Amino acid sequence: MPDKTLNDLFLDTLKDIYFAEKQILKTLPKMAKAAQSEGLRAGFEEHRQQTEGHVERLEQVFEIIGAPARGKTCDAILGITEEGKEIMDEFKGTSALDAGLISSGQAVEHYEIARYGTLRTWADQLGLSEASALLQATLDEEIATDAKLTELANSQVNQKAAA
Amino acid sequence: MPDKTLNDLFLDTLKDIYFAEKQILKTLPKMAKAAQSEGLRAGFEEHRQQTEGHVERLEQVFEIIGAPARGKTCDAILGITEEGKEIMDEFKGTSALDAGLISSGQAVEHYEIARYGTLRTWADQLGLSEASALLQATLDEEIATDAKLTELANSQVNQKAAA
Repeated sequence: MPDKTLNDLFLDTLKDIYFAEKQILKTLPKMAKAAQSEGLRAGFEEHRQQTEGHVERLEQVFEIIGAPARGKTCDAILGITEEGKEIMDEFKGTSALDAGLISSGQAVEHYEIARYGTLRTWADQLGLSEASALLQATLDEEIATDAKLTELANSQVNQKAAA
Repeated sequence: MPDKTLNDLFLDTLKDIYFAEKQILKTLPKMAKAAQSEGLRAGFEEHRQQTEGHVERLEQVFEIIGAPARGKTCDAILGITEEGKEIMDEFKGTSALDAGLISSGQAVEHYEIARYGTLRTWADQLGLSEASALLQATLDEEIATDAKLTELANSQVNQKAAA
């Protein structure tokens, strides 16, 4: 059996996050629609637009390594978004809904932060400097989105739910 | 229908991470056994011991809020660990296995960082200062474990896989 190398692992994980980003693109409009506070709704919508750019950057990385842009079922993001859906159903119309939506959003962001951090490190080790820069750009945006959700959680939404 | 508050959401998420920690306790020995490098094997074993402490802290938090310590199926961790299992199978015996194990470990850590960060914030907002301190203690250990995995990825394992 031929050895598998970091190149194979890189492609495998690239397909995983490509599938995940497309799943997130479908989920964010539902989260925006469900959000009760205007700030949270606007935050999810803004991130949906950013996510379109993340998909495009991934397609550029596929091109750099000469592989077709194809996703591979990502059980992790399916599980994470399923939990988000449960919270939307179970807390619909309650004062804790926005706090739950923020929590779900941060679980998604942290999954992406883990994957993009890994891919960026591997791109560096494989000498793929252009790919590394593209992955770093998205990683920075995911980290900023997570920080914005933390700020929203601290500033307004949770205090309403605890009232 | 009665309103649901942050108290309900806190208990719901506590059950979610309690289930997740027990799942992680079952998974870490398999990851340690699969690891090729001694440093990574030791890291997973050390984290398994820490995880026992995380389960105990969660049981203390359940006690503080007067609820029985019970898990609730966490689709997210099932998906994340399923992906880890796939990597263990698909990269078994190859030079990229340890890089893949580190990546899986970091996906787990980031899920936990998201959940413990959320729970600690909510504990503060609910005035549960003792629970907040317990959750913060575990959060600090998860962040440290993630940083240790990043260090391992940078220092040795991936370079072997790229060779």
